[in-house]
Amino acid sequence: MPSSLTPEEVNAFIAEVFPSSHADGTRCVELGERMAVARWPYDETELRPGAYISGPRMFALADSALWFAAFTVLGLEPMAVTSELSIRFLRPAMNGDLLARAVLNSVGKRRLVGTVEIWVDGAPDRLVAAAQGSYARP
Amino acid sequence: MPSSLTPEEVNAFIAEVFPSSHADGTRCVELGERMAVARWPYDETELRPGAYISGPRMFALADSALWFAAFTVLGLEPMAVTSELSIRFLRPAMNGDLLARAVLNSVGKRRLVGTVEIWVDGAPDRLVAAAQGSYARP
Amino acid sequence: MPSSLTPEEVNAFIAEVFPSSHADGTRCVELGERMAVARWPYDETELRPGAYISGPRMFALADSALWFAAFTVLGLEPMAVTSELSIRFLRPAMNGDLLARAVLNSVGKRRLVGTVEIWVDGAPDRLVAAAQGSYARP
Amino acid sequence: MPSSLTPEEVNAFIAEVFPSSHADGTRCVELGERMAVARWPYDETELRPGAYISGPRMFALADSALWFAAFTVLGLEPMAVTSELSIRFLRPAMNGDLLARAVLNSVGKRRLVGTVEIWVDGAPDRLVAAAQGSYARP
Repeated sequence: MPSSLTPEEVNAFIAEVFPSSHADGTRCVELGERMAVARWPYDETELRPGAYISGPRMFALADSALWFAAFTVLGLEPMAVTSELSIRFLRPAMNGDLLARAVLNSVGKRRLVGTVEIWVDGAPDRLVAAAQGSYARP
Repeated sequence: MPSSLTPEEVNAFIAEVFPSSHADGTRCVELGERMAVARWPYDETELRPGAYISGPRMFALADSALWFAAFTVLGLEPMAVTSELSIRFLRPAMNGDLLARAVLNSVGKRRLVGTVEIWVDGAPDRLVAAAQGSYARP
Repeated sequence: MPSSLTPEEVNAFIAEVFPSSHADGTRCVELGERMAVARWPYDETELRPGAYISGPRMFALADSALWFAAFTVLGLEPMAVTSELSIRFLRPAMNGDLLARAVLNSVGKRRLVGTVEIWVDGAPDRLVAAAQGSYARP
Repeated sequence: MPSSLTPEEVNAFIAEVFPSSHADGTRCVELGERMAVARWPYDETELRPGAYISGPRMFALADSALWFAAFTVLGLEPMAVTSELSIRFLRPAMNGDLLARAVLNSVGKRRLVGTVEIWVDGAPDRLVAAAQGSYARP
């Protein structure tokens, strides 16, 4: 039953079905009604120029957070796939873990739409990125 | 002072600086901290096939709501302009006034980013569109 | 047969099924293989502050151009609907008719995706907006 | 001079300033006037469920291709940063290297906007993703 889903169950599922995502340290750290929070542990070996956390890294975390939020409605569904996603980068992301909070705006028969906010741990009021996108139900 | 701005002041301002928007009935109906609600009165003369309210109409209302939300930070600033906006249409919008609620995710030196939800009056739990975009500060 | 569709047929169709769009002067002016060009005649009564053509007007034209491009694949299909569209505004659009050229990037079973460029008549090398979006097949 | 920039120079530059991107195999393979093609070599260790190449992998390649296209205008500029990017996933991407072709739609004083098409090697007519986004000039 989705409503009792725990972050630990999500993380065990991802470790099994998408091991490279689990291996980079991405974890589900919170689940609520139609929402999820994902964390990525800072890794200085993958910074882009300026010592910034890269845009693709933030996109990947936004995408994970939306997928985890979708699980709260669909259960652990491996074949829910991103249909489209747009992301805005707001300021440099530096020197800390990333957190992404996804909230579903809409749950339709064929599509889930959600909005994501991303910040560096310790500075939730200074967003580094905002995103919105759609997941297609399988 | 932006914090005391009222919907009436916004509507008087729009009537002056962007009269065609005021003339189509679009109004600011609520303002809060970094948020605004806009309303468009149903007009059956501009429906698209299927008797649906058109996508461009929803985009226009999303854009207005974001502009009004920006006013809560910038004051009545005519030259704040949309930089980019993405919109998702979620289900047919029919038979009623449209309401759009914009909330600012981020207020930066050069850019404001916000998220918008749109529904038909009476059905706030059944969103017809979701959008996210950026306004450039003048 | 879609390949022999003419702009005149598109315009007659729009006049019938979406009369408010036809009434604002929007016209299909060119059709090709998976592409279309739409024109909007300058109307100074609907300018936003700065005497700029408004963002929603450009969005509406981008949306029309994509629809017309979809007709080259689907025939005159009133119930093809926009699923999502993102638009970037690049510089002020002033003092002239708008032209929008849409090219389909992809034609799938359920979705058409296309890219649109918009300029003011006479300045095709100075784009005022670029957009990309999806139409759902009925 | 940007116009004489070669893919080899781009790849040497990326190896130096963004080593993790170079290390995953991403390469610039073609440069032209305001355009670039990037390639990512298939790596089955990072597939998502369904044996699909992941969405974040496609986003990363789109972002790289846009950056390389920006180099044709700006020279090898490490601090050009993505401002926003929207991506549409069109069909499963499987069993081959990815190629992404970015073309700049617009080169402004503060912003470059471009469009990207992505396909699996050998199937350029069956796009797996399309994207559009903005780079901020430093």
